[in-house]
Amino acid sequence: MRTELCERLGIEYPIFAFTPSEKVAAAVSRAGGLGVLGCVRFNDAEELDGVLNWMDENTDGKPYGVDIVMPMKIPTEGTSVDLKAMIPGEHISFVEETLRKLGVPPLPDGEGREGVLGWLHSTARSHVDVALQHRPVLIANALGTPPNDVIEQAHEHGVLVAALAGAGKHAASHVANGVDIIVSQGYEAGGHTGEIASMVLTPEIVDSVGPDVPVLAAGGIGCGRQVAASLALGAQGVWTGSLWLTVAEYDLGSSDAIQRALLKAGSADTVRSRVYTGKPARLLKNKWTAAWEEEGAPAPLPMPLQNILVSDAHNRMSAADDPDVVAMPAGQIIGRTNEVRPVAQVMAELIAEYEETVTRLEKIRG
Amino acid sequence: MRTELCERLGIEYPIFAFTPSEKVAAAVSRAGGLGVLGCVRFNDAEELDGVLNWMDENTDGKPYGVDIVMPMKIPTEGTSVDLKAMIPGEHISFVEETLRKLGVPPLPDGEGREGVLGWLHSTARSHVDVALQHRPVLIANALGTPPNDVIEQAHEHGVLVAALAGAGKHAASHVANGVDIIVSQGYEAGGHTGEIASMVLTPEIVDSVGPDVPVLAAGGIGCGRQVAASLALGAQGVWTGSLWLTVAEYDLGSSDAIQRALLKAGSADTVRSRVYTGKPARLLKNKWTAAWEEEGAPAPLPMPLQNILVSDAHNRMSAADDPDVVAMPAGQIIGRTNEVRPVAQVMAELIAEYEETVTRLEKIRG
Repeated sequence: MRTELCERLGIEYPIFAFTPSEKVAAAVSRAGGLGVLGCVRFNDAEELDGVLNWMDENTDGKPYGVDIVMPMKIPTEGTSVDLKAMIPGEHISFVEETLRKLGVPPLPDGEGREGVLGWLHSTARSHVDVALQHRPVLIANALGTPPNDVIEQAHEHGVLVAALAGAGKHAASHVANGVDIIVSQGYEAGGHTGEIASMVLTPEIVDSVGPDVPVLAAGGIGCGRQVAASLALGAQGVWTGSLWLTVAEYDLGSSDAIQRALLKAGSADTVRSRVYTGKPARLLKNKWTAAWEEEGAPAPLPMPLQNILVSDAHNRMSAADDPDVVAMPAGQIIGRTNEVRPVAQVMAELIAEYEETVTRLEKIRG
Repeated sequence: MRTELCERLGIEYPIFAFTPSEKVAAAVSRAGGLGVLGCVRFNDAEELDGVLNWMDENTDGKPYGVDIVMPMKIPTEGTSVDLKAMIPGEHISFVEETLRKLGVPPLPDGEGREGVLGWLHSTARSHVDVALQHRPVLIANALGTPPNDVIEQAHEHGVLVAALAGAGKHAASHVANGVDIIVSQGYEAGGHTGEIASMVLTPEIVDSVGPDVPVLAAGGIGCGRQVAASLALGAQGVWTGSLWLTVAEYDLGSSDAIQRALLKAGSADTVRSRVYTGKPARLLKNKWTAAWEEEGAPAPLPMPLQNILVSDAHNRMSAADDPDVVAMPAGQIIGRTNEVRPVAQVMAELIAEYEETVTRLEKIRG
């Protein structure tokens, strides 16, 4: 399973795995795909530097990528303390009261951390600076076109730039601004996503950007049939995320409740909601997301305020270990991840089922 | 492009075209697909009989199907006059006021008709009785499992029964009740639809019903890449609808405004809403659907009351000829139907692009 993009990036299979876990990212790269480390969880650039050192040493010299979260147009700055002043009291009370109703205890003294600052421009820029001191082959931006100077900086280091798009016109605009690779993010995808489903969106974006710009299909990809379908739609590769949340190598923090929730969830157990960051994102559907849909609940705040508002709540829910009360981006494909498997097995199954699928399509063609 | 289902139904290509137009259905069947005539518009069984006579004579002896709308469990009966008594005055006033605001004139004296009774059990049963006096090879039900005796009646005539499903468990239940073919109706599809997108839903349903039950993928299919993707996902064929609303042969009534609206619409110009029938259905997004989302608008009524409530409004909008104020089920694929083409050309392009796509996938496999 090789496309032109494999040659450009030096990878064996056009399977891109977005994951916050360096263990998972490294395992995907070692298995011939491209592990893409999500950097938004690193408030501290030195911590990211350390993790990328680990990646450099644990990927058998194979390529990897990084994913940052950088809005092009809204360089919202300030510490989380400054930003907290912009959050209405009504919202703070609602979150506190909801956690109380759902039985989520406060964090033990001394635990907890600042709001996630990875959403902010200054933090994301430090991520780019640190990443470029290592050997990523790809910098992806989950929030559209990165600023021009960041694209130039990446290109100077020979690093390709990818950006997510949920509509043909956004993809064309990314390309006009210098982005190299488009991630076509379908409705069914986890995290920030639009309303156009992958089946319609992928060929629309492929046609919109033309044959010289590689497109990665994202949303709804968890088995080899879905890889084949995505490549049939014109993608040069697949961008997968939720698939890697339940692999054996995933070891992030107090994630047991989240992993149990993911393993038992069906494809209908997600919801597209603004409660996680302020922008529509697909999340696990549970008591927490339902609370925000009840009558009288406040409308979520715009990004980045909503994320700061709920940041402590996220930590409390993770610590509480109740699978029905977690905050977790996840795509509809979680209906297919019902057991813990090692990365190498997931990769092997994707590739084998792709090959079987093409054989089946050949027979149908006659 | 042949699957086992082609043999069973005596068709050349596993392309199923749902359409209210007998002209379009017949042209698809003549081109080697299976035209499936939507019967819900026929309040009068004799009118359907006449149209099926025409189909018998204009399909070169090739197979065709019919589509009815028959709920298994809610045999709502009564004339539209009885049912009208169940509609709140608030709703009637809202519709009247909305039409006034949107500049939709009343129908000229003597025009208009009763609410669409095709949603009712008695009407749908008369459709089945009439259809079985002709030579359909397939009866599809847009509302899930048909009643057991209808399935038996079809099977006695050697006619296969298809039912739409938006979840794996619904598909399995259809099969347990005797349904032969599952139409996997993805989120992006026009008309009644659920929340799971085709990329996730099709393989989920294929796995749920097992290898002996053919699945047709529906939702988001308008080009050969999408046909290939659907078959890659495990479907034995594709069920298409919106694709045929803008073909040259489509000649239903005062549809000019609707056709202009469809031709100019992009993939983002649909909305999933209960305003058409009372159940969630994907429609063209326009001033009419927006009015129902404004603050103060009443919640749509349950099926079949909502359809009766808005039936006159639908007729008035069709007569008014304003493409921004129409009521029309349509899928996200309408972003791809931007010109009027004859059915034979659409079919030829689907098939050619399917073949090109498989060749591309073979090269990627290496």
